[in-house]
Amino acid sequence: MDIKNYCFKGKEEFSLQNYDTKDTAEFTSKKETIELLAANQARMAQLQDRLYAENKEALLIIFQAMDAAGKDGAIKHVISGMNPQGVIVHNFKQPTSEELDHDYLWRAWRVLPGRGDIGIFNRSYYEDVLVVKVHSLYKNLPLPDRCKTGELFQQRYMQINHFEKYLYQNGIRVVKIFLHLSKDEQKKRFLERIDDEEKNWKFSQSDIEERMYWDTYQEAYEDAIKATATKKAPWYIVPADKKWFARLLISQIIVDTLEEINPQYPELPDNKKALLSQCREQLLAETKEEEEKD
Amino acid sequence: MDIKNYCFKGKEEFSLQNYDTKDTAEFTSKKETIELLAANQARMAQLQDRLYAENKEALLIIFQAMDAAGKDGAIKHVISGMNPQGVIVHNFKQPTSEELDHDYLWRAWRVLPGRGDIGIFNRSYYEDVLVVKVHSLYKNLPLPDRCKTGELFQQRYMQINHFEKYLYQNGIRVVKIFLHLSKDEQKKRFLERIDDEEKNWKFSQSDIEERMYWDTYQEAYEDAIKATATKKAPWYIVPADKKWFARLLISQIIVDTLEEINPQYPELPDNKKALLSQCREQLLAETKEEEEKD
Repeated sequence: MDIKNYCFKGKEEFSLQNYDTKDTAEFTSKKETIELLAANQARMAQLQDRLYAENKEALLIIFQAMDAAGKDGAIKHVISGMNPQGVIVHNFKQPTSEELDHDYLWRAWRVLPGRGDIGIFNRSYYEDVLVVKVHSLYKNLPLPDRCKTGELFQQRYMQINHFEKYLYQNGIRVVKIFLHLSKDEQKKRFLERIDDEEKNWKFSQSDIEERMYWDTYQEAYEDAIKATATKKAPWYIVPADKKWFARLLISQIIVDTLEEINPQYPELPDNKKALLSQCREQLLAETKEEEEKD
Repeated sequence: MDIKNYCFKGKEEFSLQNYDTKDTAEFTSKKETIELLAANQARMAQLQDRLYAENKEALLIIFQAMDAAGKDGAIKHVISGMNPQGVIVHNFKQPTSEELDHDYLWRAWRVLPGRGDIGIFNRSYYEDVLVVKVHSLYKNLPLPDRCKTGELFQQRYMQINHFEKYLYQNGIRVVKIFLHLSKDEQKKRFLERIDDEEKNWKFSQSDIEERMYWDTYQEAYEDAIKATATKKAPWYIVPADKKWFARLLISQIIVDTLEEINPQYPELPDNKKALLSQCREQLLAETKEEEEKD
């Protein structure tokens, strides 16, 4: 499985229809992938430890998708192997009134990962070119009139490109993951959520209302991905009809990205190494003293 | 006094030497300006009230200058007329370790003014292309090696341009004020701070050390202003040798900028107006009832 097959870095033509939601690469069943996922998680944990120790680069992983595409499950099952001290998940819900009183990137910027950290955005500022576009929500925003132009979304794509370029240039790698689900599979999962009492809490009536805008959403995703995929901040189109495959692929994307960052444990300068030797001797001397006391 | 004479919007040639630090326009003494400053402050307060009520645009005023140029005094004496609920001053000191663990715009973004507010930055992210450049501080920053290129400051100018363009497009006007002081006047003010016990707290030995880099700072300011002045986020070069003139000019810049924004009290829609009439009647009826009781 080569993650390049699922990566879009801009420039060429782009159509979601060219990506099969049922794709599972060379695998045919979950069973075949269990060990691979476990191995990837172990590798992720190692690399994260180095990233944290080196304290230079940060990684930001953005998840976007239609409802029930498996964002929460992927975060739960793929990311769970890493040290939570150093991994921060942020859930972007409906903006609060304080958030709406600011520019739309404000709430994202506040929770950007610091050096050595991995930030996970469950939804993100991309909602401002997705749900806001689909439902023309910008019309109700308290923006100055001069900002409510027909070019609003073209402007936002550009702003997002500048933002992500800035992040890359300042040590934060951005990886964007779109969980690509079919409309049929969403229907199946919604029915499960309705029929299974333990899953009822995951369902709300508004999910059905949003589903009615399926095609408009697909278009908005296509436009946004096309306009914001770059070499340094690529989009990955992850086939999501099979959860097990989506999770394996996501783990592979994270491992490969961390390998590319290639974080190293900091090497101590010679004078600090000498200091370590001193500390070692001091500690050992302590034990001797105690032994002599006994 | 026309603020245009002190405004630089980029494009043309720029040299600080063309701006006289002793300039006082058509005024010759503080006395002539006292009433004008008071009138500007009253107008500022009116306009701020509208800005706050309209709750659409925000204004960000950035102060940058050499030590003792009068930033704190200007904030104290010019801004003091406005309603503090709606005006937030942020002092950018040496970055904390948490701030250094993030990209350099992070600490500024967190404290951006919300709609209807006026944000005052006493120093700002421009320090990252000023003191950081003068003292090559970026060499000690925990940045990934790929970020420590010779183009660092060219990149940062570009990032700042994108950032400020984004702010403008999202309803935040940015005005940048450079208090332009002469080296002689700084010397005079330092001596005052040393000789006057009540001013001792304003002075630190490091001020003298920084003064040794005067020319390098002037160059860094010139480069930064040249590279980041735009039509929508202009720099104002405010002659600062005469405090009274600097303060008058700053008040004029703020008034003119707010006039350009032209904020309006929100007009109630008709159904809400009807509601107001109802509320009025209810309140008046209340008084009648009480009178009848007495």
